[in-house]
Amino acid sequence: MARGAKNEKTPVTAAVLLIGDELLSGRTRDQNLVHIADLMTRMGIDVREARIVPDIEEEIAAALNALRARYTYVFTTGGIGPTHDDITADAVARAFGVKIGVNKEALALLRERYGERDINAARMRMARMPEGATLVHNEVSAAPGFRIANVIVMAGVPAIMQAMLDAVAPELEGGVPMLSRSVRTNALEGDLGTPLGAIQKEFAHEINIGSYPFYEQGNFGTNIVVRGRDDALLDKAEAAVKALARKLEAEREKGKP
Amino acid sequence: MARGAKNEKTPVTAAVLLIGDELLSGRTRDQNLVHIADLMTRMGIDVREARIVPDIEEEIAAALNALRARYTYVFTTGGIGPTHDDITADAVARAFGVKIGVNKEALALLRERYGERDINAARMRMARMPEGATLVHNEVSAAPGFRIANVIVMAGVPAIMQAMLDAVAPELEGGVPMLSRSVRTNALEGDLGTPLGAIQKEFAHEINIGSYPFYEQGNFGTNIVVRGRDDALLDKAEAAVKALARKLEAEREKGKP
Repeated sequence: MARGAKNEKTPVTAAVLLIGDELLSGRTRDQNLVHIADLMTRMGIDVREARIVPDIEEEIAAALNALRARYTYVFTTGGIGPTHDDITADAVARAFGVKIGVNKEALALLRERYGERDINAARMRMARMPEGATLVHNEVSAAPGFRIANVIVMAGVPAIMQAMLDAVAPELEGGVPMLSRSVRTNALEGDLGTPLGAIQKEFAHEINIGSYPFYEQGNFGTNIVVRGRDDALLDKAEAAVKALARKLEAEREKGKP
Repeated sequence: MARGAKNEKTPVTAAVLLIGDELLSGRTRDQNLVHIADLMTRMGIDVREARIVPDIEEEIAAALNALRARYTYVFTTGGIGPTHDDITADAVARAFGVKIGVNKEALALLRERYGERDINAARMRMARMPEGATLVHNEVSAAPGFRIANVIVMAGVPAIMQAMLDAVAPELEGGVPMLSRSVRTNALEGDLGTPLGAIQKEFAHEINIGSYPFYEQGNFGTNIVVRGRDDALLDKAEAAVKALARKLEAEREKGKP
């Protein structure tokens, strides 16, 4: 998006596929997207889309194929445990049209962690992976995630997912980091609208200005977020937004009875 | 899914489309999906998919067209305010291939709320809606959402979104409510896996058993959620799961040094 000489390279993009009935029933609030998006943003990788699908093999495979064709990386979370509803590995194999089998390295890790007494058929399921997958380790549970081509398959439990993301991050190609500045104001979106649109126009393409109204304890206000990859330009845009916010705040103050 | 005589009717389904750059940058954690999913579940409407897309008109329109063709209802959140990045109404018009114009009823509401002093071009943008849309009212902000065919377009601010959802809910056709029971245990997923899979098999199609590991303060455990539309069958499945959990807990206790 940014056009500065040093930002000329193709943007690195990502999508996130969150897998699990519990995320769609209202039972569980996802915690993984924000964590992944936050790290990706710092690495200069733009998260462009996320999808949430139930534990249905065809649905997972279809969503994965749509996303992996379009984005540099796809991160999936959920469905790689030892129970009957853990079908992500099968769905990934299906999406790639490859066989699924026991990954020996993964099995060795599971045997080491559980020992001969506790290793069983259910736990050994966690070593089943699509052919061609490489392991994504984590220290929390020992059961690894995996990577195949541009798809990184991780656990749904946040602590385990985070460990896996940390393990795989050094392998990813980052981009020019997206920087952001926030301006919080009690000016109202309806008053900001036209002049803020003019500022956006002035900095078109290089800077992206988002306006997020909030409503707290009966009061409305706005968070304005200025994002871009060029620090100096960001300074200018932030200054313009701040000046606008302060002006409207003063007018609002004056207008009070 | 349930096959009992009284549940024979076609399931009522829904998808949720969350719109906004801030949800993909890691800046904002969505609060709307859980709220929508929770109400839909109680109304017997199955939320089958959710997508999160940025503030890009073509992306919103493409996702909306994919979802509205597939599910009974589609709920969107975000992008209906007065600033330049609020483009949901345009995207919906584009998706439906209809014109967008000023909805007179919406404009009257805005004029009434803001009065001649504060109504301006930016605020009047909130009256722009696709042709054929009907209003979805809310008491919090006055600016209405809208409905067109099976698509319900709501604000992103949670308090406003919730008011809009409450306003539109009585118009929706509900289904047989999905009921659920939760069993929490310190038994491990790896030990539950095989026998839990057998219970799922026994109740196949009528009951859906989900297994959700947790990791809290260094301890692993499992939440098992049993879902279905037939209360008596749910009792049976829950009893089977509880018996399994208690058995494994006792074995785990015995196995401790």
